[in-house]
Amino acid sequence: MGAIDRNSHEKRKSSPGPSGRIWIEGDEGTFLGYGRVVLLERIREYGSITKAAKSMEMSYRHAWELIDSMNRQADKPLIEAATGGKGGGGARLTDEGERAIKLFWKFYAEFQIFLKEQSKKITLNLN
Amino acid sequence: MGAIDRNSHEKRKSSPGPSGRIWIEGDEGTFLGYGRVVLLERIREYGSITKAAKSMEMSYRHAWELIDSMNRQADKPLIEAATGGKGGGGARLTDEGERAIKLFWKFYAEFQIFLKEQSKKITLNLN
Repeated sequence: MGAIDRNSHEKRKSSPGPSGRIWIEGDEGTFLGYGRVVLLERIREYGSITKAAKSMEMSYRHAWELIDSMNRQADKPLIEAATGGKGGGGARLTDEGERAIKLFWKFYAEFQIFLKEQSKKITLNLN
Repeated sequence: MGAIDRNSHEKRKSSPGPSGRIWIEGDEGTFLGYGRVVLLERIREYGSITKAAKSMEMSYRHAWELIDSMNRQADKPLIEAATGGKGGGGARLTDEGERAIKLFWKFYAEFQIFLKEQSKKITLNLN
């Protein structure tokens, strides 16, 4: 299994054969999905919701709503306000957030393996 | 593994945990998905695109577009015009269509097993 290209979007043009999309449901609907997890990673990278959202061409408002949805549905927040440092106002990925990222990519990688196995069984000419 | 409830919609409210959606890509995009395969089954049942579409609360136009898309992307048509019989004008599932239905439900069933296996590994509290 190759490395996951985190910059390629999940909905990129697929090649013929078995395909799909996975996510983790929570109490309110989607808890963790591809875009949400990339957002968590970008916040870890930039320490800022604004910068993370911008890097994904996402509005701050939408990013904030996704974070709020994840925080509400998790036992403990995945993202919290970063305190200290001059200026402050940043955002920080928590340990719970780290676990959520790992858990999702594991599920994602196993799904890619599943699809690869299925593609051996399924041929498009149906014969 | 229980029987698949063909009347329940794939996008029904899911319970917390691993979730997803699968389909088979063709040269032009989706070739076979949940709704398309149910449409094939309804045409087999009713012998009519109009009746099949109506049973799914789908417009005739949309049903026709889905069938046209499947027929274009398959090696041989999955649905063809039914000839003979008084009145005529019906539609018929071909052998290729039968194979497509079987192939999709096999893939679907294996995906349900995959999700069940994943749900044993993934707990929402992330601990």
